[in-house]
Amino acid sequence: MSEIASIGEFGLIRKLTEDLKTINKSTLKGVGDDCAVLSPAMDMKTLVTTDLLMEGVHFDLTYVPLKHLGYKSVMVNLSDIYAMNGMPEQITVSLAISKRFSIEDIEELYAGMRLACEKHGVDIVGGDTTSSMTGLAISITAIGRAKEEDIVYRNGAKETDLICVSGNLGAAYMGLQLLEREKNVYDQQVAEAQRTGNKEAMKNLATAQPDFAGKEYILERQLKPEARRDIIAALAKEGIHPTAMMDISDGLSSEIRHICSQSKKGCRIYEERIPLDYQTAVMAEEMDMNVSTCALNGGEDYELLFTVPLTDNDKVSQMEDVKVIGYITQEEQGCALISRDGQEFELKAQGWNLSKKE
Amino acid sequence: MSEIASIGEFGLIRKLTEDLKTINKSTLKGVGDDCAVLSPAMDMKTLVTTDLLMEGVHFDLTYVPLKHLGYKSVMVNLSDIYAMNGMPEQITVSLAISKRFSIEDIEELYAGMRLACEKHGVDIVGGDTTSSMTGLAISITAIGRAKEEDIVYRNGAKETDLICVSGNLGAAYMGLQLLEREKNVYDQQVAEAQRTGNKEAMKNLATAQPDFAGKEYILERQLKPEARRDIIAALAKEGIHPTAMMDISDGLSSEIRHICSQSKKGCRIYEERIPLDYQTAVMAEEMDMNVSTCALNGGEDYELLFTVPLTDNDKVSQMEDVKVIGYITQEEQGCALISRDGQEFELKAQGWNLSKKE
Repeated sequence: MSEIASIGEFGLIRKLTEDLKTINKSTLKGVGDDCAVLSPAMDMKTLVTTDLLMEGVHFDLTYVPLKHLGYKSVMVNLSDIYAMNGMPEQITVSLAISKRFSIEDIEELYAGMRLACEKHGVDIVGGDTTSSMTGLAISITAIGRAKEEDIVYRNGAKETDLICVSGNLGAAYMGLQLLEREKNVYDQQVAEAQRTGNKEAMKNLATAQPDFAGKEYILERQLKPEARRDIIAALAKEGIHPTAMMDISDGLSSEIRHICSQSKKGCRIYEERIPLDYQTAVMAEEMDMNVSTCALNGGEDYELLFTVPLTDNDKVSQMEDVKVIGYITQEEQGCALISRDGQEFELKAQGWNLSKKE
Repeated sequence: MSEIASIGEFGLIRKLTEDLKTINKSTLKGVGDDCAVLSPAMDMKTLVTTDLLMEGVHFDLTYVPLKHLGYKSVMVNLSDIYAMNGMPEQITVSLAISKRFSIEDIEELYAGMRLACEKHGVDIVGGDTTSSMTGLAISITAIGRAKEEDIVYRNGAKETDLICVSGNLGAAYMGLQLLEREKNVYDQQVAEAQRTGNKEAMKNLATAQPDFAGKEYILERQLKPEARRDIIAALAKEGIHPTAMMDISDGLSSEIRHICSQSKKGCRIYEERIPLDYQTAVMAEEMDMNVSTCALNGGEDYELLFTVPLTDNDKVSQMEDVKVIGYITQEEQGCALISRDGQEFELKAQGWNLSKKE
């Protein structure tokens, strides 16, 4: 393990970026000057989104591998570009790093970022690297492109539009619950071994790995989410132009309310239609949680939530991995969830990102 | 003072951004969707730069007012856009905020950012607001435009080119030294009063303000730097196209070495030509520091460093607030500083931002 101080800030940046290649025509100049220089295509608009991830709030390095963290921090930004019906082309990466990280750690983090970029055809064109007195901070800005007529905002939903989601919901949240549970179990075992002075137990714990068999999917959804480029491509192929769209990062309830409030509409969502994975349901059962609540309010799905005209019903129904979960109503009708037994509830926003962890 | 938890993440974002107006034609959609949407002018390239500022590393809130901090965090990014000979148009602002900040604190920080944006004709188009377990983190990305033929990189310096700097150097660094000194004096006085149980002294210290008379300029250079839009405008007016340019954030020595290494050239800088302000010199004297060393290695000047063809000598010599400090040589001659008494020294990079504070 090599100390970052041994090569300094410039040395680290050089090490991380020296063999970066750019693949997009629109990237004229990447890392290495005061700014990156981009050449937007003549008929394209530019999309910009940014996220700031803080250790202890957005990620816990006791169970998140650095490479996964790098991958995920890129994905959450690409997801925002897709949510506008655009294609990402560049990102900048800023890191604040405390002394406890080695050069190898940061290379690992960066490797995850590069993998995510390669998969999605994105260039790393700049950033900033600095020290931190405390934890790790990761700030990524993604830049994408879309034709003006293709861009989908949150405010375009119309009455009778169908509400669709990609993939399934709640899995990332259940993955997080599982990781947190195992962390607590582990911490308790260590405390117990220390209390009783059981050296054998301490030794075993040092190399212990929890058994995650059968739970791989929900862990992957939490640790290595995949932004839904495929859905954007499929929508284009089917000739479907959503009337409103966003990605689901804070939970379905919260996001559909954003679309409704910005579109000045209401909605009806059917609980029985919310797509769930088997592992999500099993894990919720195991933890004695209501799986629908997890799907509605658990965050970090990074699936796409969009509305399409009723006339596109046949087309969306045929799309792979897309499900119609309800429809848009007049604003006065509010945002309603129809439960499995036919009762109607008000959909409440319970985004968890900031509120829960603070 | 109101707790941020009382209005939540979305409430805070709304409060900060609700009356934001956009002024640039190129801003199609600002805050409020998954991405900002920009419309780059047809003949323009896009410039992108980003900075991540961490509490305890880049700023110390015991003596930096939040409004100044907001102003400065925007300026350091705009400075990078000007350093490419471009004009900034948009920024995104991400904040990670710990519990000890009130809504009013963050409004104050944001007010400084907005002031900086208004002065430079820049729109705030997006960002992210999250909690932090520790200090404040500020990540800003600036986006600008320039015609391709106008963009100035770091790598274009030619032999015999004149090396120019705007303004004067070392002032921000001396301002920082002054603030740090007063902070130490204050801390010692408090410790002494506590040790002796002197309640009268404690009371006086609570409202004590250090006497900064005659030192306003260096404080302002540290706390409220101004990106040199005026110099970029003046260069355009004079018809001067620099061959290489960057802004001075880590100290002249470090920056001129970047230009030389990227241009594969050497340089000769004359100590006696390095522009200094009177207050900088007085403060250096008072602190028994070599003022040239401060000007060469003290950071955060945010002045522009650029090279022009020898034939532009008359033009740059007439420019207000620009000084020729040396010239570009062959690479083999290295980077040299010629001292006041005619001796030649190797210019060493001693950027202080990361290395010194860690």
